[in-house]
Amino acid sequence: MAYRYEIRLSGSGGQGLITAGIVLAEAIGVYDGQFVAQTQSYGPEARGGSSKAEVIVSDEEIDYPKAIRLDLLLAMNQRSCDDYYKDLKPGGVLIVDSTFVTQIPVAQAFEIPFTRIARDHLKKEMAANIIALGAISQLTGIVSKKAIQTAVLRRVPKGTEELNRMALQAGFTAARKVQKAPSQAGLSENEDL
Amino acid sequence: MAYRYEIRLSGSGGQGLITAGIVLAEAIGVYDGQFVAQTQSYGPEARGGSSKAEVIVSDEEIDYPKAIRLDLLLAMNQRSCDDYYKDLKPGGVLIVDSTFVTQIPVAQAFEIPFTRIARDHLKKEMAANIIALGAISQLTGIVSKKAIQTAVLRRVPKGTEELNRMALQAGFTAARKVQKAPSQAGLSENEDL
Repeated sequence: MAYRYEIRLSGSGGQGLITAGIVLAEAIGVYDGQFVAQTQSYGPEARGGSSKAEVIVSDEEIDYPKAIRLDLLLAMNQRSCDDYYKDLKPGGVLIVDSTFVTQIPVAQAFEIPFTRIARDHLKKEMAANIIALGAISQLTGIVSKKAIQTAVLRRVPKGTEELNRMALQAGFTAARKVQKAPSQAGLSENEDL
Repeated sequence: MAYRYEIRLSGSGGQGLITAGIVLAEAIGVYDGQFVAQTQSYGPEARGGSSKAEVIVSDEEIDYPKAIRLDLLLAMNQRSCDDYYKDLKPGGVLIVDSTFVTQIPVAQAFEIPFTRIARDHLKKEMAANIIALGAISQLTGIVSKKAIQTAVLRRVPKGTEELNRMALQAGFTAARKVQKAPSQAGLSENEDL
């Protein structure tokens, strides 16, 4: 049977998740050489509301490009975490932005304060999505570091390459710190960087 | 039964079709208030090869986000035109970049030299995708001019707003010229601007 890995990136409208989805799909599809389908949906509720982007990875052409049972959920705010954690497979990976997600609805999750890192270390809150991509690469291996870096640098606006390179590195580093010890729910609201 | 309108934007890797798909989806979904799903696929063949982005529009939530029978095909090069014209519905609309597409495989198409217009009038070949979005708005009405302009200006890099506004206008204008008289195959290889 074909290998299939389903990713959903979710959060609020201004958190750059559609860009993150596009970059992640390009990294895996073009630079890591797997089959990828990337989808985002908008509805009448989209203006200022929730945002999600999905990336499906497979070793063969993808017939159904929508996520059904998630292998990986990134939740950048509490609402998206609450709305989507039930779509995780048993054993699926939950990564949350602990700047905003304080209630973890599952037994185990990786809690990283992406937005706080972006704000404090890069002086640019909007880079939280790229930090999250770095963490995904470090924690799951679904995308290689080389591929995600190539895709990020190709897609970001000219002049912001160095900022985004630092954001990725910050994501690798923050993820390494939680990698050995994923949180038990409620125990690690304050993540050291 | 639910209304469903299927769009595929296709061409070569460097022609900005993924960006065009994202902008079009955001325009229709966020600013025109319809349900939209936007997909792009990458495979091992994607590096430097063909590129396509799909946008599905509906008046209700979209369960299957992949195009099956196209209402609208934009083909920015000959290969994508050859590969995809068979997916058009009877009565579906074909719009081609006549800078590169010289063989029209169907009885009727809108032929507009997007890349030539971008090069000659805007001195920026990369703006061909935005000109094409303007033409889509003018020719099909699937997206309002106001919505496409809002989405374009929100998504393009800072400092390029005026260029992209002009690109959209050039698309509206070029489309108006072919609107009354869609080409009969073979009769209008040289489109006046």
